[in-house]
Amino acid sequence: MFRTMTCGELRLANVGQQPTLAGWVQRTRKMGGMTFVDIRDRYGITQLVFNQEVNSELFEKANRLGREYVIQVTGHVAERSNKNANIETGEIEILVNELNILNESITPPFTIEDNTDGGDDIRMKYRYLDLRRNAVRANMELRHRMAFETRRYLDQMNFMEVETPVLIGSTPEGARDFVVPSRMNPGQFYALPQSPQLFKQLLMVSGFDRYFQIVKCFRDEDLRADRQPEFTQIDCEMSFVDQEDVLQIFEGMVKHLFKYVKDIDFNDTFPRMTWADAMKYYGSDKPDIRFEMKFVELKEEVSGRDFVVFDSVPYVGGICAKGCAGYTRKQVDELTEFVKRPQIGAKGLVYIRCEADGSYKSSVDKFYNSDDLKAIATKCNAEAGDLILIMAGEVRKTQKALCELRLEMGERLGLRDKNVFAPLWVIDFPLFEYDEETDRYYAMHHPFTSPLPEDVHLLKTDRGAVRSNAYDMVVNGVELGGGSIRIHDSELQNLMFELLGFTPEKAEAQFGFLMSAFKYGAPPHGGLAFGLDRFVSLFAGLDSIRDCIAFPKNNSGRDVMMDAPSVIDPAQLEELYIQRDEQRLTNL
Amino acid sequence: MFRTMTCGELRLANVGQQPTLAGWVQRTRKMGGMTFVDIRDRYGITQLVFNQEVNSELFEKANRLGREYVIQVTGHVAERSNKNANIETGEIEILVNELNILNESITPPFTIEDNTDGGDDIRMKYRYLDLRRNAVRANMELRHRMAFETRRYLDQMNFMEVETPVLIGSTPEGARDFVVPSRMNPGQFYALPQSPQLFKQLLMVSGFDRYFQIVKCFRDEDLRADRQPEFTQIDCEMSFVDQEDVLQIFEGMVKHLFKYVKDIDFNDTFPRMTWADAMKYYGSDKPDIRFEMKFVELKEEVSGRDFVVFDSVPYVGGICAKGCAGYTRKQVDELTEFVKRPQIGAKGLVYIRCEADGSYKSSVDKFYNSDDLKAIATKCNAEAGDLILIMAGEVRKTQKALCELRLEMGERLGLRDKNVFAPLWVIDFPLFEYDEETDRYYAMHHPFTSPLPEDVHLLKTDRGAVRSNAYDMVVNGVELGGGSIRIHDSELQNLMFELLGFTPEKAEAQFGFLMSAFKYGAPPHGGLAFGLDRFVSLFAGLDSIRDCIAFPKNNSGRDVMMDAPSVIDPAQLEELYIQRDEQRLTNL
Repeated sequence: MFRTMTCGELRLANVGQQPTLAGWVQRTRKMGGMTFVDIRDRYGITQLVFNQEVNSELFEKANRLGREYVIQVTGHVAERSNKNANIETGEIEILVNELNILNESITPPFTIEDNTDGGDDIRMKYRYLDLRRNAVRANMELRHRMAFETRRYLDQMNFMEVETPVLIGSTPEGARDFVVPSRMNPGQFYALPQSPQLFKQLLMVSGFDRYFQIVKCFRDEDLRADRQPEFTQIDCEMSFVDQEDVLQIFEGMVKHLFKYVKDIDFNDTFPRMTWADAMKYYGSDKPDIRFEMKFVELKEEVSGRDFVVFDSVPYVGGICAKGCAGYTRKQVDELTEFVKRPQIGAKGLVYIRCEADGSYKSSVDKFYNSDDLKAIATKCNAEAGDLILIMAGEVRKTQKALCELRLEMGERLGLRDKNVFAPLWVIDFPLFEYDEETDRYYAMHHPFTSPLPEDVHLLKTDRGAVRSNAYDMVVNGVELGGGSIRIHDSELQNLMFELLGFTPEKAEAQFGFLMSAFKYGAPPHGGLAFGLDRFVSLFAGLDSIRDCIAFPKNNSGRDVMMDAPSVIDPAQLEELYIQRDEQRLTNL
Repeated sequence: MFRTMTCGELRLANVGQQPTLAGWVQRTRKMGGMTFVDIRDRYGITQLVFNQEVNSELFEKANRLGREYVIQVTGHVAERSNKNANIETGEIEILVNELNILNESITPPFTIEDNTDGGDDIRMKYRYLDLRRNAVRANMELRHRMAFETRRYLDQMNFMEVETPVLIGSTPEGARDFVVPSRMNPGQFYALPQSPQLFKQLLMVSGFDRYFQIVKCFRDEDLRADRQPEFTQIDCEMSFVDQEDVLQIFEGMVKHLFKYVKDIDFNDTFPRMTWADAMKYYGSDKPDIRFEMKFVELKEEVSGRDFVVFDSVPYVGGICAKGCAGYTRKQVDELTEFVKRPQIGAKGLVYIRCEADGSYKSSVDKFYNSDDLKAIATKCNAEAGDLILIMAGEVRKTQKALCELRLEMGERLGLRDKNVFAPLWVIDFPLFEYDEETDRYYAMHHPFTSPLPEDVHLLKTDRGAVRSNAYDMVVNGVELGGGSIRIHDSELQNLMFELLGFTPEKAEAQFGFLMSAFKYGAPPHGGLAFGLDRFVSLFAGLDSIRDCIAFPKNNSGRDVMMDAPSVIDPAQLEELYIQRDEQRLTNL
């Protein structure tokens, strides 16, 4: 061992001891005949002192140390005269009597500090240096702790972690697979799993009863800001359960993580909300319920006043922004611009100020008299000093826009504190989603999701109204996970395939081995999966998942540090019986 | 919940209670007006009783149950008159008053019993049914427990689990990579990692100090009996350590696993053996030291007696098989045939029987008199009743053959008990391996392995004699893991590349980003990796890793259950800018 203590360990109680530390030079300061060096490792920072009068040779050596040199020092622990309350070792320093340079460092391309001077691109290229920064490393420590506590909880609950294969068969339904040419089976390809869905259901058929896995999954999709081609799921499945059992077990898991990782106790049951209510009151299937500001439907109140904008649309909804009546013209214009951005695409925004004197001032005074406005305000529970914001249009689109506005107002009003956590179960999702483009119904979740028992009778008559036995865990507007009770009855499964437009042959080709397995006694089962990357970023208070991943890829799916992917040796392609399509590549 | 208790839980203390169980029908027996059904789940088996007199309708329903039906039952727990001491619930049975068939099953293609009637192929095709068998599922439970305890130990020791990427760049050195065409980067390929070696060294540069990961790795190799294209490593790395630190930490890990998984305490330090001694005494770098039977070098004793077979070769070695002097001619012939098999390839075998009366009888009596034989026997520590077996030839080849013979004798003498565990560290491996075919030195471990400090001076003068700072953990002749202290000094690393025949350009192309990283202050570091699959199979007492893997592939790398790999949609290849080499595929 190159050290007897770490750089985060020494306290006043250690004064007089003679430890050996090893770590990186964070910073050096020369003050007359004294040189101070901060030595850093994963565990902390300790101040080293070199005194010219005591040992001038050592002093000179210390003065030649550069940033990020790796050093080993031995010395006496002494009480500091000038204590630093910001770091845990701030009461002591080490009077060094031995200094050993273990490795030198050229000057790093950015500073290794919490507030670094390095931009995103350079930090990604030198990710191994970015990871030296406390802020980034702390995210990885958090990730480790969360994965560890997840396993500890699930193990206690009798879940077995089972590794499912990474080289599997391609299943064309769903997102695009990454594929892997097989050398031993020329002309054939493996696929990388988008999730272990089929395997976990097979494990239920196998009687494993309670399965989980923290597992890498892969999707070859065009990357949006917060997507990675490889991501990690906490994947779980249970047998002989109904929805209530699944919710209880995994609510327990989320509470366990909050308790043992964030030291936050949730004593009450998490609230539950139907998908229909989530859309109606928040315009989102993942509402942020840290704050109220629910949608109020105003169609009835605003109709028949010759305001064609409101009269001509199926939906008019408002939110009440508490205490915002004083918003300036400029602030209201900003909000209008906000909802008119192409990402949101609203046509405009109507406001009603509830003035302190009980009067109302609105952008539609021409159409609505004081009583009209009062009726609207009353419906919105608005009081003097509040600002009512109203949007109108097609139902879903307007709800979605109003949702964005609500979140924006929550942000402006400081109602979205990253240290406040508001978990929520969203339940009773629609089983099917209608796609206008292809004029077809799709499974909202996946084809194995079971309908709510009380809605089964609607399957053949009113597909769009059938609710599924599916659920999502949402915290602060972030969907952390979701799942469903699966269909375990072959007949119902066949009906589902039929309703989803699969011919029996196509169903057999894609899911044949699962359907075969189901013939040998499939138990009732269900489960869910959490996105670990997002879970960590929520706990870390980050907006992106990227900084919770040690070596992330950029938006083109590239690892810029390693410069991957890359061109490979033609001999290797030959072994795989594939060729690059040079003609089309040339024309790119 | 479909049950109030599991099928492994009920005891005499539960008599009189009315639990609900759910599980699979293991077996039904009709005895007059009584039908007995064994219901099985992951946790155990419980006997159900249906009495025609009590409820004839229920009785008839029970008689129609087939094997592997999924049922739910409720009934009274009663003490059995005919107790079964072999199962934990054997003192009770349930007098059923409610039976609910949750799912039917067609007849499985093999029996779901510890001793099944299903052959390997059919069990692999229906792996989900094979996994229902207690013996197979127990292996997966063992695997879960081992992975969990590994994490628990390493977490206690301050190791952080960090996920490294699966889609990485191809590194041509080493085995063959699996590659993944990138759609977003047309014409370019990711590779799947053969190990996270480069990443874990980068994490040390990042100051992570103690890293581990239980991680899937991939090698596209022609599969030997006990290899899988994807396998799992316990991958570890530490900073500021020397070899002694690494051995102590991971000896602690192995002891922790023995203690908490197998309930076996190892109080003493594991023995250590140099690679040179392992080869000299056992002819193997992974000796099985459950039994002695060390090699004895006899060249001196057998030379100069005109026996040209012994005089003409550089190596003559023997082993002493205790108490085997009574081996019949046929038994000795069997051993001779054994070593002459092409896998071993020896020319023959010389024996000396140490008879009870103190005389000797050998297959080379023509050349050696009684005193000669006695001298050999004395050197071999052979006593009356022992059998000495001698082989001769080129050093390594003969040692290897003698190793096989020793293991065979150990097997015959019952010295290789699967319930006895003999761990061993093998250390001081050669740094380089000379390959006659290419007339080149290769890194025995990998190019980052550091030489022993005391051998560094030999690097330029006597490469073959340089020992490395590498170590293997061996238990019962199985290599469970291995690793090394790495080179952290750029100059030494460049010298290594030079000695391994890399031009600076080639070294830069292959390992450039690691070499760049090392310029920014790389700490001294080292680590190792364990093969989890092999570790589990050792603990499970299995000869193959296959039954420790939930969904293994066969020797052609196929998943026969899923029928993967397979041909994929041409449209998908088009998106990837690759084509199958149809001409060569047709000519296959």
